[in-house]
Amino acid sequence: MKKIVTFGEVMMRLAPPGFAKFTQAHSLNVVYGGTEANVAVSLACFGCQTAHVTRFPDHALGRAAAATLRYHGVDTSSISFGDGRLGLYFLETGAVSRASQIIYDRYDSAFSLIRPGDFDWETILAGADWFHWSGITPALSQQAADCLQEAIETANRLGVMVSGDIYFRSNLWKYGKKPQDILPALTAGCDLVLGNQENFEELYGVKADSFEDACRKMQIQFPRIQYFTDTERQSLSASHNRLMAKFFDGSKTYSSDVYDITHIVDRIGGGDAYLAGLIYGLLTKNDPQYAVEFGAAASALKHTVEGDANLVSVQEVEAMVGGDKSGRLRR
Amino acid sequence: MKKIVTFGEVMMRLAPPGFAKFTQAHSLNVVYGGTEANVAVSLACFGCQTAHVTRFPDHALGRAAAATLRYHGVDTSSISFGDGRLGLYFLETGAVSRASQIIYDRYDSAFSLIRPGDFDWETILAGADWFHWSGITPALSQQAADCLQEAIETANRLGVMVSGDIYFRSNLWKYGKKPQDILPALTAGCDLVLGNQENFEELYGVKADSFEDACRKMQIQFPRIQYFTDTERQSLSASHNRLMAKFFDGSKTYSSDVYDITHIVDRIGGGDAYLAGLIYGLLTKNDPQYAVEFGAAASALKHTVEGDANLVSVQEVEAMVGGDKSGRLRR
Amino acid sequence: MKKIVTFGEVMMRLAPPGFAKFTQAHSLNVVYGGTEANVAVSLACFGCQTAHVTRFPDHALGRAAAATLRYHGVDTSSISFGDGRLGLYFLETGAVSRASQIIYDRYDSAFSLIRPGDFDWETILAGADWFHWSGITPALSQQAADCLQEAIETANRLGVMVSGDIYFRSNLWKYGKKPQDILPALTAGCDLVLGNQENFEELYGVKADSFEDACRKMQIQFPRIQYFTDTERQSLSASHNRLMAKFFDGSKTYSSDVYDITHIVDRIGGGDAYLAGLIYGLLTKNDPQYAVEFGAAASALKHTVEGDANLVSVQEVEAMVGGDKSGRLRR
Amino acid sequence: MKKIVTFGEVMMRLAPPGFAKFTQAHSLNVVYGGTEANVAVSLACFGCQTAHVTRFPDHALGRAAAATLRYHGVDTSSISFGDGRLGLYFLETGAVSRASQIIYDRYDSAFSLIRPGDFDWETILAGADWFHWSGITPALSQQAADCLQEAIETANRLGVMVSGDIYFRSNLWKYGKKPQDILPALTAGCDLVLGNQENFEELYGVKADSFEDACRKMQIQFPRIQYFTDTERQSLSASHNRLMAKFFDGSKTYSSDVYDITHIVDRIGGGDAYLAGLIYGLLTKNDPQYAVEFGAAASALKHTVEGDANLVSVQEVEAMVGGDKSGRLRR
Amino acid sequence: MKKIVTFGEVMMRLAPPGFAKFTQAHSLNVVYGGTEANVAVSLACFGCQTAHVTRFPDHALGRAAAATLRYHGVDTSSISFGDGRLGLYFLETGAVSRASQIIYDRYDSAFSLIRPGDFDWETILAGADWFHWSGITPALSQQAADCLQEAIETANRLGVMVSGDIYFRSNLWKYGKKPQDILPALTAGCDLVLGNQENFEELYGVKADSFEDACRKMQIQFPRIQYFTDTERQSLSASHNRLMAKFFDGSKTYSSDVYDITHIVDRIGGGDAYLAGLIYGLLTKNDPQYAVEFGAAASALKHTVEGDANLVSVQEVEAMVGGDKSGRLRR
Amino acid sequence: MKKIVTFGEVMMRLAPPGFAKFTQAHSLNVVYGGTEANVAVSLACFGCQTAHVTRFPDHALGRAAAATLRYHGVDTSSISFGDGRLGLYFLETGAVSRASQIIYDRYDSAFSLIRPGDFDWETILAGADWFHWSGITPALSQQAADCLQEAIETANRLGVMVSGDIYFRSNLWKYGKKPQDILPALTAGCDLVLGNQENFEELYGVKADSFEDACRKMQIQFPRIQYFTDTERQSLSASHNRLMAKFFDGSKTYSSDVYDITHIVDRIGGGDAYLAGLIYGLLTKNDPQYAVEFGAAASALKHTVEGDANLVSVQEVEAMVGGDKSGRLRR
Repeated sequence: MKKIVTFGEVMMRLAPPGFAKFTQAHSLNVVYGGTEANVAVSLACFGCQTAHVTRFPDHALGRAAAATLRYHGVDTSSISFGDGRLGLYFLETGAVSRASQIIYDRYDSAFSLIRPGDFDWETILAGADWFHWSGITPALSQQAADCLQEAIETANRLGVMVSGDIYFRSNLWKYGKKPQDILPALTAGCDLVLGNQENFEELYGVKADSFEDACRKMQIQFPRIQYFTDTERQSLSASHNRLMAKFFDGSKTYSSDVYDITHIVDRIGGGDAYLAGLIYGLLTKNDPQYAVEFGAAASALKHTVEGDANLVSVQEVEAMVGGDKSGRLRR
Repeated sequence: MKKIVTFGEVMMRLAPPGFAKFTQAHSLNVVYGGTEANVAVSLACFGCQTAHVTRFPDHALGRAAAATLRYHGVDTSSISFGDGRLGLYFLETGAVSRASQIIYDRYDSAFSLIRPGDFDWETILAGADWFHWSGITPALSQQAADCLQEAIETANRLGVMVSGDIYFRSNLWKYGKKPQDILPALTAGCDLVLGNQENFEELYGVKADSFEDACRKMQIQFPRIQYFTDTERQSLSASHNRLMAKFFDGSKTYSSDVYDITHIVDRIGGGDAYLAGLIYGLLTKNDPQYAVEFGAAASALKHTVEGDANLVSVQEVEAMVGGDKSGRLRR
Repeated sequence: MKKIVTFGEVMMRLAPPGFAKFTQAHSLNVVYGGTEANVAVSLACFGCQTAHVTRFPDHALGRAAAATLRYHGVDTSSISFGDGRLGLYFLETGAVSRASQIIYDRYDSAFSLIRPGDFDWETILAGADWFHWSGITPALSQQAADCLQEAIETANRLGVMVSGDIYFRSNLWKYGKKPQDILPALTAGCDLVLGNQENFEELYGVKADSFEDACRKMQIQFPRIQYFTDTERQSLSASHNRLMAKFFDGSKTYSSDVYDITHIVDRIGGGDAYLAGLIYGLLTKNDPQYAVEFGAAASALKHTVEGDANLVSVQEVEAMVGGDKSGRLRR
Repeated sequence: MKKIVTFGEVMMRLAPPGFAKFTQAHSLNVVYGGTEANVAVSLACFGCQTAHVTRFPDHALGRAAAATLRYHGVDTSSISFGDGRLGLYFLETGAVSRASQIIYDRYDSAFSLIRPGDFDWETILAGADWFHWSGITPALSQQAADCLQEAIETANRLGVMVSGDIYFRSNLWKYGKKPQDILPALTAGCDLVLGNQENFEELYGVKADSFEDACRKMQIQFPRIQYFTDTERQSLSASHNRLMAKFFDGSKTYSSDVYDITHIVDRIGGGDAYLAGLIYGLLTKNDPQYAVEFGAAASALKHTVEGDANLVSVQEVEAMVGGDKSGRLRR
Repeated sequence: MKKIVTFGEVMMRLAPPGFAKFTQAHSLNVVYGGTEANVAVSLACFGCQTAHVTRFPDHALGRAAAATLRYHGVDTSSISFGDGRLGLYFLETGAVSRASQIIYDRYDSAFSLIRPGDFDWETILAGADWFHWSGITPALSQQAADCLQEAIETANRLGVMVSGDIYFRSNLWKYGKKPQDILPALTAGCDLVLGNQENFEELYGVKADSFEDACRKMQIQFPRIQYFTDTERQSLSASHNRLMAKFFDGSKTYSSDVYDITHIVDRIGGGDAYLAGLIYGLLTKNDPQYAVEFGAAASALKHTVEGDANLVSVQEVEAMVGGDKSGRLRR
Repeated sequence: MKKIVTFGEVMMRLAPPGFAKFTQAHSLNVVYGGTEANVAVSLACFGCQTAHVTRFPDHALGRAAAATLRYHGVDTSSISFGDGRLGLYFLETGAVSRASQIIYDRYDSAFSLIRPGDFDWETILAGADWFHWSGITPALSQQAADCLQEAIETANRLGVMVSGDIYFRSNLWKYGKKPQDILPALTAGCDLVLGNQENFEELYGVKADSFEDACRKMQIQFPRIQYFTDTERQSLSASHNRLMAKFFDGSKTYSSDVYDITHIVDRIGGGDAYLAGLIYGLLTKNDPQYAVEFGAAASALKHTVEGDANLVSVQEVEAMVGGDKSGRLRR
């Protein structure tokens, strides 16, 4: 069984039930999520061995956040507990032309206070096949960025595949550095990168005519990167999206089917579900077309699952990859 | 007022709220259903006199199951109570390409322990216009099959119309008999059969070119059967189905409109709702086209009703039969 | 900041959760609404200064109804409390071809017992820019009609713009008068009327070839009326409507885009949301096309909001008016 | 099996969940209850054959009210449906020193519009052992009082025992008559009366030194009355009551144990539960002491059951009558 | 009608339903509260004119917090909106010997970022009868302390009575100052102080033999203070408390009855409820005994109300002050 | 950190919310529990390393049961999955004199189908300090009894302390053996036994004058047993119990305080909570008095926690052991 390690902040998500607006909420539904942990949970639901590394406040809610990852099968033994807050985000779920809205409340989280040396990456990554990170971690604090740098270097040294979701949220960077200051060194340690042409230009100055062209130019600048991938989402409305994914393996671009998601239940974490599916596909079959299709189908299914993380099984994804999108009752 | 008697197992259905997956359920919504009882409930909501015959465990939940049928207007005075379990099924409701899933937990139910002689069919069927059964009952135990045989023979003797939904679930048959051993004798007592060409071939060896051809050949083998009917469901996704029905009256095949069900709330019991509508149509108007249309419209409406049984009124169905699918607010 | 005063009954709305039918309801969700108060709430959510005038029973639920308006930012200082019931309505929410159903229980409400002189309209309307009423108020009692007449006359005297939603529900008129007896005098005091060709003919004997023609003829009969407006709703199903609005300013008819509302959450109050949007548009920009578009977009958004009133912000409407119907997540 | 017929209004009860005050309610829990129907439901839960006679509005909620009685085993075949409202009451549940509060909204109910001749009492009471009424029915309208008079006379003629709960609510009498005008004639037809010394004085001018003395004097005025009964409630707080009952059989007064109810769940219908228990005791055992004890124990148990009606079984009551108040877990 | 102004932070409170522990929470109930705002809400429920002054983040949840105060009748027109977080606290409700637990998450709140000059106290306090503050505000930031100083000075100048709840939470003071540095100057502007002997010693170095002795010595140090008050809570368990209050008016100490609260629903805000009741008593009757009794009874009732604020009416309190603690149903 | 291994069936518990009776349940709350697993969960909440060994059906609900144990910190890596049902039990929660009721539905569970050799006890018990079993396991099937025998023998061989809760439910034994046939051999491998005088006499023929006398005689028959323990519960009502525990260490009997549990939230698992507390006490301190007190306090706290397992922390128990039963709010 393949082992994947992920690293990043996990937040409590608080959302009014159904389609209620914030102003109508008398109770809030609680789940826990974070882009990297979502990848771990989904891979655990696929039967993989996964571990998530993060830091929580040392109180009952921090413990509950860790317990939730454990519930879904993620190894939480490397999570540390200490001072700082539990990062939060509030989600109002939209419908049709009313957009979902997020209010973040994540500053000064326990995770943002991690320090280099806090985690014994040699031990954590021993025996792992894959390490995954995202551009949110280096945005939170210099120490978080430094910790991540340690992790990536250790993974590289141990021969663990490294994937980076380099989408960054420019408004998160508050500690005096810009994404352009920090992300290149982290990107250099990646074997697989999720990003698009615009990111590559904005972050690394890569100007290109197409996704494939951009990837080839990225490979010149970052020779370690083998694979590039991205998803394309067409938002017809908050209730109806179309989705497809593409994957460049250094020589060729593979595209998934277009998935028509006509009755969205929860679109948060759709990209994380894609990455989990892609990683599963790459680790279990030596077939890029299968991997990109598995990822895209997994992402489509995520849109029907409440919460941040994709809780579907391999069987549910494989049915779709096999072409069955009928949603026919299974007894 | 027409009187219909139905016979079969009723289960407690336990379903996570909304679209939650089983793994996300901290509470389960409870309804009670069974294919034959669903027909009775729907006919009671249409204003018919109905009675359901079954057997429940003699405890508070068995009593609650019976009370629920009574709530919806079904006569429960012939239900017996005794040893055995309450059959259960767990339902996870899917959306879009994620299929709904059912976990059955129905073995050793109180119903499966019924014995011939347990029910006084002469009395139960006195004054009835219709008796309905399904292929699930004979799958559960030899005694259940024998009981059903008694009921059908009594109905035939009393001149009560008999309908059989011969869809069988091959994986239910655990007591040493195959559907082919048991169903033919039961089918021989039917006046109306719900089934398709594939069922007819698999169960009775009828090879045919079309539904109508299959029906004509069935009538040679089972001369009592006057009417055949079936529904055709096109599953575009778990949230979007198209449905139509056909009815062969021995000389001609009648087809309903195609009903486009774009936002499914609960598709369980769609077939039972059709049969209830068809029976209502046949019993109240001497017009096969009306009956098949009423049945198909009723089935379409069922997909918008939570639970196993169709709780809509005649007025709601007739509006659709009259061509109004607009769903316009009624004040 | 513009100030709008509205006048009319507010009812407690009791609705089974989700798509449950009345017969399945073990709890009922509570909101408060009324066509004129819905306009006030929506305008308050747009940042306007609003006041609603009504009368509630002097008990905890009457107080809660007023508090709910205040919650949404409406000034409730002119509401009076006394004898009579709290008007109620029960709502069953439909889906696809199953229509939503309303059971009204509003007779003998505290509001219907208001009497001329109960409200000091001079004070209430001082400084107001707009006064809004609907055809429901004069249907409830002669005194209610007389009170309304007082209010309109005062508004006319003070130069406050008056809008009337003249949709009347013929089955509400129980006190011996017909709409034709009462509405003309009230209509005569309007600057803006919401209604359609059929209303104009039925109420005022205006026969016309088109909406615009009807409006021009109305203006001859009611010279004060400057503006006419109406919405056109195409009900594809209870879950899917299309909506557009038109506005005649005495010289030209302006039409909004057609809004395709594919996954309706709650369509109650869609017309009130339109009027609130239109009034906002007229009060803030001297541009009829903008106003009708703002109104129609607001109405489309209302269909995604639970409850009677439209709780969206100006920003949410403006995004749609700007052409963005993508419902893309806002972080 | 004994058969009991009850007659009276049934209301929808709407209560905020838990201990929420009205002003905090965003949903209301729904049950249906009425003092006489509560007696019927409790007796049905004891295994008796019961029928309730009332009148509901002919809409989905009126039908749901009847279905709820049927759910609990009450025969609803004599219920009529027609115009008028569904009577309602709103309940806020108190705790400790905060009293529960009820807001009634029952005027113009479908029940209050019944007319003499509406019910075929000969048929309804045929084969019955007991008929029960309360002082609320004659308070609602002259017709309701007249209907009740018909019922009592028929019961007397058929030899059916008649019990009357003569507690009257003076503020309910709005149609021009006083309790003193109407209740004596109804009381004259009773075999058993629930009431206290104060009622007897206020209603019938009976002045007495004690309950027993009052009963003896009542028997002079109303020679048909065999039995008198009443409960005594000591309200230590909204959460803690003490309860005992007494019963006079014409020669001797029997008193029950004192029941200490330390953690009240729902005290509504405690008196109805007592009467149901007493009637059960009288009908099944010729032992006044047993009957009053069974009634008091049943009433004590009712305080632990949510809703208006007592849903406990004979076994649960008998355990208490046998002296076991330990509430020990039953597996 | 008396007018009271309060000033302080308002937090969102997030609590698992019922007695669930944090680790069992899948949803959290939302209310808004803060010690000073709780006083305002309770006084508004008593029919007083109240205004609360605070600062919220300028987003939907900050707006909802303000709306909630408005719902309960508090004037929110002086609340400002801007940057910073919404302060939060998480509450786990205990029972019997299991204590309730609070996790605070309130640092960097919008309120803590207020600055002197932000509020126009002259206008806000014009016409007010009372101004209330607590020791939490000066703990949050130097600016908050400075703002409060401004308010108190203005109130003193305008002749508005000032009350201070000087309970301080030592672990809240993070900005470099100690309570002893800040509180004396604020206390000097008070007319009424809530505090106990230990507080007076710890904060102001007052050593005394009794509460009354301490008060007299405080008056020497702080000559403006006319009144001192405090509550004494005996915690028999998390479900059962006893409560009494005392009040020193400069010459005599008045004590309330002891209130036995045997089934606690929610004890948060019990002290605030007392103060609101006391203030109400002092403002409406010139009778210290009445005021302290009204306050203690109000506080006892608060323990039966979910949420931070006391939502009971004057009538509910007066019944208790009149000696009726029976909690008898009110129809 | 001490390591404890437990072994036994885990069931899904389905309970109506609050105090609703089964007949009132429209949804059922879901938790998972089993006497031995409850011990493991409680010890995990105390910070111990625990592992539970069981067998679940290989479907989503079996997986959810295991995940729930993992959520609470129990190692689930030795759990096996296969055929058979998920054992269930239905719980109706009583109050005051109304007893809670359980309906079991556990036959043919996946656990009852375990076979000797299914678990590698050498590995599972390696490094463990304690192994715990109960008398329910050998009641379920001969294979379950044989498996347990294997486990106990392995534990004895490895020097792992063994505790047995020998309460047996006589009505569970359906496979042809009596408790007396099976329990003695299992008891012989125990170091600690939970049971009372009556059990010892009924199961092993030990006649004695007192608990201590019985224990001494048990030690003659079963020389391995070092410790005996039991709890004594006084059930004043379903809402109010008193509890104490005693512990005999071979020479002396230690008794805990009496714990008065006045407002019970959930009494299921009170005995398991005691055992977990006792084991924690024995493993962490060499002080029998401390251990029995810790156990009894833990059990008292359990009665305030919803669900089968005790989720309180060491700190919460220690406060009570230290004498603080005040339930005072902890901030």
